[in-house]
Amino acid sequence: MKFTCEKMQLEEAVRLVSKAASPKSPIDALKGILIRAGSDLRLTCYDLRRAIYTDIDADIKDGGSVVVNARLFTDVIRNMPDGLVTVSVNEDFEMLIKCGVTEYTLTTISGDEYPELPEMDRERKLDIPQNILSSMIQDTIFAVSTNESRPVYMGSLFEIENGTMTIVSVDGFRLALRKESIDHGGSDTLRFIVPAYALSDIEKICSDSEETMSLSIGTKHISASVGNTVIITRRLEGDFLSHEKAVPRDFKSKFKINKADLARAIDRVSTILVDGEKKPIKLVFGDGEINLSCRTAVSRSVDSCICEGSAEDVEIGFNDNYLRDALKAINEEEILFCINTGSSPCVIKSAGDDESYLHMVLPVRLSPGN
Amino acid sequence: MKFTCEKMQLEEAVRLVSKAASPKSPIDALKGILIRAGSDLRLTCYDLRRAIYTDIDADIKDGGSVVVNARLFTDVIRNMPDGLVTVSVNEDFEMLIKCGVTEYTLTTISGDEYPELPEMDRERKLDIPQNILSSMIQDTIFAVSTNESRPVYMGSLFEIENGTMTIVSVDGFRLALRKESIDHGGSDTLRFIVPAYALSDIEKICSDSEETMSLSIGTKHISASVGNTVIITRRLEGDFLSHEKAVPRDFKSKFKINKADLARAIDRVSTILVDGEKKPIKLVFGDGEINLSCRTAVSRSVDSCICEGSAEDVEIGFNDNYLRDALKAINEEEILFCINTGSSPCVIKSAGDDESYLHMVLPVRLSPGN
Repeated sequence: MKFTCEKMQLEEAVRLVSKAASPKSPIDALKGILIRAGSDLRLTCYDLRRAIYTDIDADIKDGGSVVVNARLFTDVIRNMPDGLVTVSVNEDFEMLIKCGVTEYTLTTISGDEYPELPEMDRERKLDIPQNILSSMIQDTIFAVSTNESRPVYMGSLFEIENGTMTIVSVDGFRLALRKESIDHGGSDTLRFIVPAYALSDIEKICSDSEETMSLSIGTKHISASVGNTVIITRRLEGDFLSHEKAVPRDFKSKFKINKADLARAIDRVSTILVDGEKKPIKLVFGDGEINLSCRTAVSRSVDSCICEGSAEDVEIGFNDNYLRDALKAINEEEILFCINTGSSPCVIKSAGDDESYLHMVLPVRLSPGN
Repeated sequence: MKFTCEKMQLEEAVRLVSKAASPKSPIDALKGILIRAGSDLRLTCYDLRRAIYTDIDADIKDGGSVVVNARLFTDVIRNMPDGLVTVSVNEDFEMLIKCGVTEYTLTTISGDEYPELPEMDRERKLDIPQNILSSMIQDTIFAVSTNESRPVYMGSLFEIENGTMTIVSVDGFRLALRKESIDHGGSDTLRFIVPAYALSDIEKICSDSEETMSLSIGTKHISASVGNTVIITRRLEGDFLSHEKAVPRDFKSKFKINKADLARAIDRVSTILVDGEKKPIKLVFGDGEINLSCRTAVSRSVDSCICEGSAEDVEIGFNDNYLRDALKAINEEEILFCINTGSSPCVIKSAGDDESYLHMVLPVRLSPGN
């Protein structure tokens, strides 16, 4: 195998695919990047859950395929001087990488030892603007469960119906939901669950433009492609919570609050939770005002925040991090905080009350001294 | 105790002194900041090795002294809104901190439980411009030993003689030395060793100005003061290497090299040392050129760097990090690399050959395959 290509392009490709390498895999090939020079130059990483591959421009002198350690190759290419890099592999699978006076010799193994990528079947295609998909993933991925006992919740539900795409993540304590209008070129309903590790890769290959990403939905796998780059991942199987049933629609009180004010008050009262102390913060919803407080064995804190809305001093305990995540995901100055009783789920949404973004969070029981 | 002060000033003072708190100490008081309100407001932290205290402006209503947890108090003050903060402590040692609607209540203990700071005796005073002291510490502190079996080398030697101050650090593999002219107001010779942990604190309170820092040298302790802030530390005792004897003055060859070129070549050849692999890099000093290479079990790298100077292919092995540290500490475009044989100490200094900065580094034995 022998080819010459631009260092910058190779570096970018390596950075992109190497996310799917498995440095700790017992299988040597999976620690590596598969480099295949045929009519194109293709770089592939695959950790048996998801694969990323990308094609780059190269002047290919001799074809062939080898697997080179991903970590080492990434470091080597990054440290190369800018310019044309020549990569050649001899019969002993020794790879020589040259640019100017800089030379590296790396051990590789034959590309034949690399596992086959999963094949896509019975595909349903879908084109989504990259900037929309990216922001929808960002605003929901933090609420994906990390609990391995319910694997289906370790991904986000995609629901496409009547020109609207909804992404839902849920971890047992909260639910994050984003809706956007999209043109999905059909009238059927699509539902599939994409694992969080792949969502995070997909989000990273999205640019901030309206150009579309092409999703292919197979029976077992999903692929996402942008330009010359493709990500293939397993779908997660199982029953996903029905958000239509789970999220309350009617509330006794709604409070309109400046997001930054509330975020600062939350940060202040939770300051005393040092050293990983997990105590709830208490919000008391009153008349035009929310009083916040927190208490540990050795300290107490008190703060407040003015708002529009009124309730008869409803006390609700929250995990401060869940509130922070919810506020961070809303790109508006004002939010709506919708409550019923001190023990029922609350909903935080954008002030427009339009459910393009919605975050449901369950209260934490307050102990008597709180 | 009750006082009011500016949040910003209190925050800065707390940030400064809390470096000397001991969050893991078995003695509760040492986890804290001693706050003493008398004619001034003084904040103190002391970890039994070094103490830092600072005085700030405050409107003191009632005097007194308490110890408050350093980590918690730092977080609380940082998260306060800007403005005037009122701190009061009641008879049960409950501290109430107020600013606007924000209130914290923290548990404290009596200031009587805080250990006494060391007393300075028979002081010798010395004034050094802060910018000079700071850069001298930065350029030598990295070569301080971390090996606890020879405590005297866990600090830097200060030598003041004939209007010149020299700081020397040595760790058994290398030596870093900086000289500067200073006016020390006397004709006697001063020699003392300052522990690295205190040097790093002293460096942080130096500003980038020519204003002086006042050092007091006692028999057992040293204090450094700038404005209202004082650091007191133990001196290290023991015999320190004589740099006059240890550093070679005569060399067979001297190479003048562009520092950035050499640094890049070192970074490139050492790229293959991933996963903490500790192999030397080999430098072959030839005619107007230095060839660099490195070899691990699975890879090799080669690079080169042009320079002024000539030798008959002298091969020397180096720890790449020691070379990197030495180059980083020289603020000039060109450096001098002075060598004798492949097994004798090398000296790297500024191209002016004036020894204002000098770094000696010992070679690493190269294995036959290298």
